[in-house]
Amino acid sequence: MNAEIISVGTELVLGQVVNTNVPLLAKTLAKLDIAAPYQVTIKDERQQIEDAIEAAWRRADLIFVCGGLGPTADDVTLKSTAAALNTSLTTDQKHWQWIKQVFKRRQIKLLNENIQQARYLTGGQPLANPAGLALGSWYSTDGRVVVVLPGPPAEFKAMLEKSVEPRLVATFGSGQRIASRTMNFLGRPESTLMEEIGEATKKFSQVTVTSYVQPSRIQVRLTVPDLSASKAERVLGATADAILKVDRQYFFGFGDNCSLVNQVVSLLKKQGKTITGAESLTGGMFQSTICSVPGASNVFNGGFVTYAAGAKEKLLGIAPEVIDQHGVVSAETARAMAEKSREKLDADFGLAFTGVAGPDALEGQVAGTVWLGLAIRGQQTQTKLLHLAEYSGRQEIRNLSVQYGLQMIYQQLRE
Amino acid sequence: MNAEIISVGTELVLGQVVNTNVPLLAKTLAKLDIAAPYQVTIKDERQQIEDAIEAAWRRADLIFVCGGLGPTADDVTLKSTAAALNTSLTTDQKHWQWIKQVFKRRQIKLLNENIQQARYLTGGQPLANPAGLALGSWYSTDGRVVVVLPGPPAEFKAMLEKSVEPRLVATFGSGQRIASRTMNFLGRPESTLMEEIGEATKKFSQVTVTSYVQPSRIQVRLTVPDLSASKAERVLGATADAILKVDRQYFFGFGDNCSLVNQVVSLLKKQGKTITGAESLTGGMFQSTICSVPGASNVFNGGFVTYAAGAKEKLLGIAPEVIDQHGVVSAETARAMAEKSREKLDADFGLAFTGVAGPDALEGQVAGTVWLGLAIRGQQTQTKLLHLAEYSGRQEIRNLSVQYGLQMIYQQLRE
Repeated sequence: MNAEIISVGTELVLGQVVNTNVPLLAKTLAKLDIAAPYQVTIKDERQQIEDAIEAAWRRADLIFVCGGLGPTADDVTLKSTAAALNTSLTTDQKHWQWIKQVFKRRQIKLLNENIQQARYLTGGQPLANPAGLALGSWYSTDGRVVVVLPGPPAEFKAMLEKSVEPRLVATFGSGQRIASRTMNFLGRPESTLMEEIGEATKKFSQVTVTSYVQPSRIQVRLTVPDLSASKAERVLGATADAILKVDRQYFFGFGDNCSLVNQVVSLLKKQGKTITGAESLTGGMFQSTICSVPGASNVFNGGFVTYAAGAKEKLLGIAPEVIDQHGVVSAETARAMAEKSREKLDADFGLAFTGVAGPDALEGQVAGTVWLGLAIRGQQTQTKLLHLAEYSGRQEIRNLSVQYGLQMIYQQLRE
Repeated sequence: MNAEIISVGTELVLGQVVNTNVPLLAKTLAKLDIAAPYQVTIKDERQQIEDAIEAAWRRADLIFVCGGLGPTADDVTLKSTAAALNTSLTTDQKHWQWIKQVFKRRQIKLLNENIQQARYLTGGQPLANPAGLALGSWYSTDGRVVVVLPGPPAEFKAMLEKSVEPRLVATFGSGQRIASRTMNFLGRPESTLMEEIGEATKKFSQVTVTSYVQPSRIQVRLTVPDLSASKAERVLGATADAILKVDRQYFFGFGDNCSLVNQVVSLLKKQGKTITGAESLTGGMFQSTICSVPGASNVFNGGFVTYAAGAKEKLLGIAPEVIDQHGVVSAETARAMAEKSREKLDADFGLAFTGVAGPDALEGQVAGTVWLGLAIRGQQTQTKLLHLAEYSGRQEIRNLSVQYGLQMIYQQLRE
């Protein structure tokens, strides 16, 4: 079954607001196994709305018309939808009484136009609005369903969850069983990773593998349709195992919302360990990222931002010869920063970042050249050289440095 | 003239990501007086892409096809666009050589598929990608223009600004003459600010005043249409002056891209002054924000992240009695942190942050309670108490703390 989503709003068309309603609706539909392969955004204009509904009518069984249910003159969605469907509007008298009471209680002047918000498509059913004034509409005809929803995100979300989703399930069922698992990777180019994964999962012909590149990770989604729950879990588990045999070193966790920093803080907490840092090009971003996790105080007491060479010497006590001989951007400087920070705060791990954020080169090294150092209590210090894409820009280079630093600790902690 | 925007991406259709490219493009077009009344989102599927381009062909003079330019098998945008336009693809040999060099330098295995990212529509021109690998395409035929752009937001934005917008201006002109000025404010509720501004600008009837709330500022835009350039500048200047008479203390600069941190770093540089910091709840975010500005090394050498009380004593040498007597979240602790950090690095300014990021309360103080301290060479230390909305969440509380801290320095520097 196909749905089509029509978003109505001049502010959307002009780019003044980002449309967060459509992703929310599309996710709800995907969960119910309803595809919405065609999504349109148009202005608050009667003819355009009518045309869009008629075009959708030819393509889809389920049509959503979202936005433009306010009381002002430019809110023409409901009228235009009624015209396209050859029906009229009915006033929900009980709801209209309620709107009048709300205005009285809030001491706001009621306008005649507000009655529009108590109307719905004649022949259909009104949808309650748990977070605002305007009713929605649910309208069935000729084997098709048209749903009209309000535009403000809080109202849209509330009506979707409370009124629309239950009706969709009741009307179309909860969809075929699709099971999926998301795996997160860092440090492998997408094309290489997908080639390796393709090779490793060749024999799992029921599993669809897709990838999605985000700024600080590649998400790989494994999907199986048409299997019983226990069988699906077994197949997904075996597929994931086959992938981990090849790409474990880049893998950092399952789940759509998994992040390296959450993994690291949670492992540190579990193992009763603490961390500190000394940051040059990242300038505090690593420590700030650690502190973004609630409960970071269990694993992090504090640390150093040593941007200039002088601060590396003054705050950490690094011998000037180390920097003079090897340069600021060097394994030796990263090692010294990591070790000194760890010692000074008596932490289990000390992580150091030194490199070239750009746009200019430094000591003859191009932007994107970064040394990481990881000092570990009772073990040898590790260093790692990154060549990040210089064209990706200063913030991206700093951000990726933090992510690769977190990965170094993660790999150590999960051993 | 009408444009149509086609977004391609299965992850968009499934609602897995929010589309921020389209609003950006729509805003650019609106500035040039080009309408984009019809915007479509479809899957990475050859037939759907071809159909969408053909439908757009009937409605629009300028067609944008965005996303799906990666090297993997599901990236079919360029091929499908070529098919819809009855053309083929040309490889930009110079760009292909460059891609090969990038992979070599970064020690990543190059795949045959990567050559796709060096291709563009035959008969058109390649568009440089300042932030990634894949070329875009600009293709003119039969009085229509088709533009193909990459999906990753950083690449999309960079290509739009550097390559597409200048070509649009050159091809279609810069639209009608509208003069505008943007003013940036922090620290006043939008409704209060706009009420004061409305009162102050009453007599400038030609000027339209609109406001736009962003996470770390309120942008107020003054617009005058249909005036000569010099007259427009005069009217906008007089209006801005009238606003500054009332709201100067919340104002921090003109321009759409103005940010407090850029203002602060630029004023510090101009005045030959340096800054450091000691951060508790912000955990390095203030210093990292300073380091986000290229050339920060002129004004910042390093500083301290003192998350736990112990680190405040150990790294800064704050007397335990200060914290014991007044608590971690207090004017006295903020003052001591600011002064000690400034002294230790011999900087002109030392800025300290201590407070409750939440979600839990601390020392009986609710999330959002934050003390800032600003130590100034040769002057009295200033402290400031913030009550940020606890419901706004941990990251927003930390981020706003940084912005209010920057505002304290800004107000000091612009005196």
